[in-house]
Amino acid sequence: MFPNVRIVLVETSHPGNIGASARAMKNMAITNLVLVSPQRFPDEQALFRAVSALDVVNEAKVVDSVEEAIVDCQLVIGTSARGRRIPWPMLDPKGCGEKVVAESGEGHEVAILFGREDRGLSNQELQQCHFHVNIPTGEAYSSLNLAMAVQVICYEVLQAKLAGAPEQSWDMDYASSADMERLYEHLEETLIQVGFHDPDNPRQLMTRLRRLFNRIRPDQMEISILRGILSSINRLDN
Amino acid sequence: MFPNVRIVLVETSHPGNIGASARAMKNMAITNLVLVSPQRFPDEQALFRAVSALDVVNEAKVVDSVEEAIVDCQLVIGTSARGRRIPWPMLDPKGCGEKVVAESGEGHEVAILFGREDRGLSNQELQQCHFHVNIPTGEAYSSLNLAMAVQVICYEVLQAKLAGAPEQSWDMDYASSADMERLYEHLEETLIQVGFHDPDNPRQLMTRLRRLFNRIRPDQMEISILRGILSSINRLDN
Repeated sequence: MFPNVRIVLVETSHPGNIGASARAMKNMAITNLVLVSPQRFPDEQALFRAVSALDVVNEAKVVDSVEEAIVDCQLVIGTSARGRRIPWPMLDPKGCGEKVVAESGEGHEVAILFGREDRGLSNQELQQCHFHVNIPTGEAYSSLNLAMAVQVICYEVLQAKLAGAPEQSWDMDYASSADMERLYEHLEETLIQVGFHDPDNPRQLMTRLRRLFNRIRPDQMEISILRGILSSINRLDN
Repeated sequence: MFPNVRIVLVETSHPGNIGASARAMKNMAITNLVLVSPQRFPDEQALFRAVSALDVVNEAKVVDSVEEAIVDCQLVIGTSARGRRIPWPMLDPKGCGEKVVAESGEGHEVAILFGREDRGLSNQELQQCHFHVNIPTGEAYSSLNLAMAVQVICYEVLQAKLAGAPEQSWDMDYASSADMERLYEHLEETLIQVGFHDPDNPRQLMTRLRRLFNRIRPDQMEISILRGILSSINRLDN
């Protein structure tokens, strides 16, 4: 039901969590699983816990980095605990479900990232996301099991689909994650060139610029315009 | 946060599911766990999977029957697959969360029942419920892991609480599950007495009457009135 939605599990420690996540996904009609450097995979435990979602586990794509997992994605959402140093645009799980349905319905490639069991996603990984999603919990115990978090998020995606969440429309395709990374690289070089940015004393500059451009979510024509502006600046030195 | 909401797991086979359910509950601020005839409990696996919800597992109440688990409850909700022979009032998980918050906020004792891993709740157990709740799934694979189902339902309860679901009010306390059982017993005896009901050929009579009265959800004064009517009929024979 969701051919262009992928669940990305980053450096999962316990193969049982991979299997349980696969089952949770398939229960909610989501079947594309990407594993970034899993610690133990393939593994019997993953198959055992998948029960009737063996196909999801067996067809999982294993890659080396988050960049590789999301390279062609136009919407990237990362699961996160509250209270990061630099706040990011946030969704609640229901809003996340609606967003995923709206955009995947438009044909955009969508990734939802889940971090390590003990430490979640790194700041660097979170900064590659357009939105962060947080699952509200009780105060006494806020750490969900990884597969449980996958279950809740996938549940909200299917709920949104069944509720007929409106699909979003736009005249141009959004930039992919790879396009955005090239923009950030180009932007950083240019800011160094013009003397605004000192890579030896970076402060939070690139983080803040990532947050800004991820919030804008440029389409492909806008990315061309931005890159064109940067190229014009690059030529000034010559 | 939910002192009068209990999760009831019926004849659970795998102790790991008990631990994972305890964690899922505590993550969503629900801490009362009742186990009806668990197959293996106490067990190391339950403690291992509970992680920081050991207190929920250790304080779980173990009983012999669903009747005992819900005896003092005024709202009983049972998780169920779709398509039972006699349809029952249904809630979706969100509606379930709202109902639980509304009634537990009024001080009612609330139970949410989860059945066996392989067979769910029996018809007889389902007939003790005011409502059934079904978690919508994809068509290819509809069977959720037990603890995952606990996670989704408890998530919706906490969501409803955080969203400030309106609390319901009523002038009298609802009848408890024990009151209702006494009513059904009294009713069945009376129907036999008056020659309307043949226990050797019961058809679905008592099931249909249970469904009817569970839908009414009599309060304690109404139960007294109903019992009084039955007693008056009982005296006719003399």
